[in-house]
Amino acid sequence: MDDVLKYCDEHHDEALAKLVELCRFETVSAQGRAIEETADWVAGELRDLGFDVQVLPKPEGPPAQPVVYAEAKGASAKTVLFYDHYDVQPEEPLDLWKTPPFEPVQKDGKLYGRGTFDNKGNIAARFAAIRAWRETSGELPCGVKFCIEGDEEIGSPFMEEFVERHKELLAADACIWEGGGVTWEGLPMVTLGVKGLLYVQLECQAITHDAHSSYGTVLPNAAWRLVWALSTIKGPDERVMIEGFYDDVRPPTADERAAVQKLPDDAAETFKSYGIERSTTGVSGFEYNIRHLFEPTATIDGLSSGYEGEGPKTVLPAKAMAKVDFRLVNDQDPGDIERKLRAHLDKHGFEDITITTHGGEHPARTPVTDPLVATMMEACREVYGKEPVILPTMAGTGPLYPFVTTLGLPNVDIGIGYPGAAIHAPNENIRLEDFRAGTKAIAAFLGKFGR
Amino acid sequence: MDDVLKYCDEHHDEALAKLVELCRFETVSAQGRAIEETADWVAGELRDLGFDVQVLPKPEGPPAQPVVYAEAKGASAKTVLFYDHYDVQPEEPLDLWKTPPFEPVQKDGKLYGRGTFDNKGNIAARFAAIRAWRETSGELPCGVKFCIEGDEEIGSPFMEEFVERHKELLAADACIWEGGGVTWEGLPMVTLGVKGLLYVQLECQAITHDAHSSYGTVLPNAAWRLVWALSTIKGPDERVMIEGFYDDVRPPTADERAAVQKLPDDAAETFKSYGIERSTTGVSGFEYNIRHLFEPTATIDGLSSGYEGEGPKTVLPAKAMAKVDFRLVNDQDPGDIERKLRAHLDKHGFEDITITTHGGEHPARTPVTDPLVATMMEACREVYGKEPVILPTMAGTGPLYPFVTTLGLPNVDIGIGYPGAAIHAPNENIRLEDFRAGTKAIAAFLGKFGR
Repeated sequence: MDDVLKYCDEHHDEALAKLVELCRFETVSAQGRAIEETADWVAGELRDLGFDVQVLPKPEGPPAQPVVYAEAKGASAKTVLFYDHYDVQPEEPLDLWKTPPFEPVQKDGKLYGRGTFDNKGNIAARFAAIRAWRETSGELPCGVKFCIEGDEEIGSPFMEEFVERHKELLAADACIWEGGGVTWEGLPMVTLGVKGLLYVQLECQAITHDAHSSYGTVLPNAAWRLVWALSTIKGPDERVMIEGFYDDVRPPTADERAAVQKLPDDAAETFKSYGIERSTTGVSGFEYNIRHLFEPTATIDGLSSGYEGEGPKTVLPAKAMAKVDFRLVNDQDPGDIERKLRAHLDKHGFEDITITTHGGEHPARTPVTDPLVATMMEACREVYGKEPVILPTMAGTGPLYPFVTTLGLPNVDIGIGYPGAAIHAPNENIRLEDFRAGTKAIAAFLGKFGR
Repeated sequence: MDDVLKYCDEHHDEALAKLVELCRFETVSAQGRAIEETADWVAGELRDLGFDVQVLPKPEGPPAQPVVYAEAKGASAKTVLFYDHYDVQPEEPLDLWKTPPFEPVQKDGKLYGRGTFDNKGNIAARFAAIRAWRETSGELPCGVKFCIEGDEEIGSPFMEEFVERHKELLAADACIWEGGGVTWEGLPMVTLGVKGLLYVQLECQAITHDAHSSYGTVLPNAAWRLVWALSTIKGPDERVMIEGFYDDVRPPTADERAAVQKLPDDAAETFKSYGIERSTTGVSGFEYNIRHLFEPTATIDGLSSGYEGEGPKTVLPAKAMAKVDFRLVNDQDPGDIERKLRAHLDKHGFEDITITTHGGEHPARTPVTDPLVATMMEACREVYGKEPVILPTMAGTGPLYPFVTTLGLPNVDIGIGYPGAAIHAPNENIRLEDFRAGTKAIAAFLGKFGR
């Protein structure tokens, strides 16, 4: 194994050069840019690494982007499946970038550019780890598969159908998720799950067209109706009032709580960065992390109605709109929550408020006690020389559910990032040493997994 | 008097030609267009009618537009003060106009163009009535003053201060307001008051910048806070819950209720035009009119927060904004209501929600029993040959309060409009016969008032 890690160190610059190459593609899935070229480059690299590669369409076809699938046998009969995505977030707002977003620039031990972390940096690190095995022992220590999609940044449409359709092709013994990173303290973080999501648009049209506001005496007002409806969904105590909303919430296990105990306490830092003194419910420290990771949410993402310009305009608006997302935790189901929301609105007299669903993803998490977690912890310890922390689930969402459920795989997530990576933001960047360590951790994991 | 009315009939076309001339000025106060030219034209016409004219600035100066003030003595010692405005609403949306907004077109017994009704049509009718008296008896039957402002359509800024400052100049025995019209049934409508208004913008900034919506677990959400605050202001029963909000509401008198009994019942027609089956509180007929005219309102005019574009974006918004107007009735005071709103928000834990006031006007109404009303009723009966209806107050707002309070004048409002006049909208128009009758009603009123 030592020669593999040594290879990673000695070929760090080559690995970085590959990453720069990959980041030059402007693979913005939201705008359908550079999809084919990027998928071709990724497929070419994998062929070069000795993989059998297929570029597969998603079931419902365009605008869903193709998936690059690849497989290679290894010394062990066991197979690990890497989930990644070759698309990136739009680069806007452009004026806040200090370097061109698609011309990666190395500076002060960092590499700046869209995708350097999410997710092209992790793809490059994983490819570099594979190359180290190929160039040192020739054979991979275990079977390896890649499933690299092209529209994660627009919500991974049809991923559940894709996995269902390609169940046999994707069969494996474990899944490695797209990749997180280290904490501010430099501890590698092993993440085991994601939250789910239900994203809805609520709309009310109370009258056919806007009225003069003097009719506030007698005509229904869409904005008022929407406000009243929303206020029945969640109150200032932050408890969601939809009947049955919490029915399927699985509380954290003792192991998960123990893992959370070891997480750094960065609540105060978060409060400071948003200019507040305390969390909505007053939690801090351990309870903050428990709430943040294991509680579902109801968030108003947007509101719009009537006159929104400067100064006064006396108008009684015919229409009002709210965007609301619910972050879901195991074992909540987005379809079930949507039905409960509809029933809730109807029960409270808001049959006139329509629900349009803009996306649903299931939550998923792997138990802390799964042997895969121990293997990854061991690899991290070896490479970082530090005890990794376990994040039982992210607070965010990803298309993990079909991998865990349909394919039945345990899953862990490690990567090359750090808290200053500016994910999805201007000046996205990685630290070069995190890239080096992240590459070696994957290489070490493959060796241990194949034992 | 007969010769005066006959003159109005015989010189109807000349009066219309003057109106067309006046409507060609693009006097959009919101955009500061053609203010000076229009004020000059109005002042010139009044001089031609034998008035002493002054063009007076509003106290706070630009962007408030100048007021054309004019006075002429008459046979009687009594003086009537006409309040009008020479500015108009913007012509947008242009594509909905069937004729050019500032090129008045006569068609099917109607005259189309911006301002043909509001308020240039009424100015022209009043000038024509004065001319009829000048050309027939030489002398006016009573003293006449005009106060014609240039920014009524942007909320008459500084009108209270203007009236206060020019109290002696504006002194009179009665006030005639800018002008309504006839009902669908052709009954002349004598209107005695206006509602007041408090227009506020409520804003919440809960965190310094937008957050990823996964932070819905712990970070305050401006949109939620605004929704909760609004929901404490009014509930689905349509009752305003601000403490003391109704304290100064003066219920309609027996005379006012009797006048409302005689009003046409056009609730069903209003419902139909807005595509609804019933009013919010279920009122119809007499109770509908009572509610519409004598109840204050709380109306959300606009809402804005977070992501308002197409599709989903998972963002926890830092800011949220609502525009809210309160239509006030005697003797509510906009300053008092604003203080009560502030106290209400504070009491409910919404100290973080700011209030910016975009305008305040006091309500004002003249008693049904005032002798001025009887005089105007008599004039209308004579000209229209029909029993007029009395509207004790409009549901809308205007700067009437200082005229009624500071100057101590009784006030009535009659005019040349009809319900299809498309006020403030594309294809604003008057019916030529309403213009003729409205001119004669003013002429007849002057005669009776001067007796």
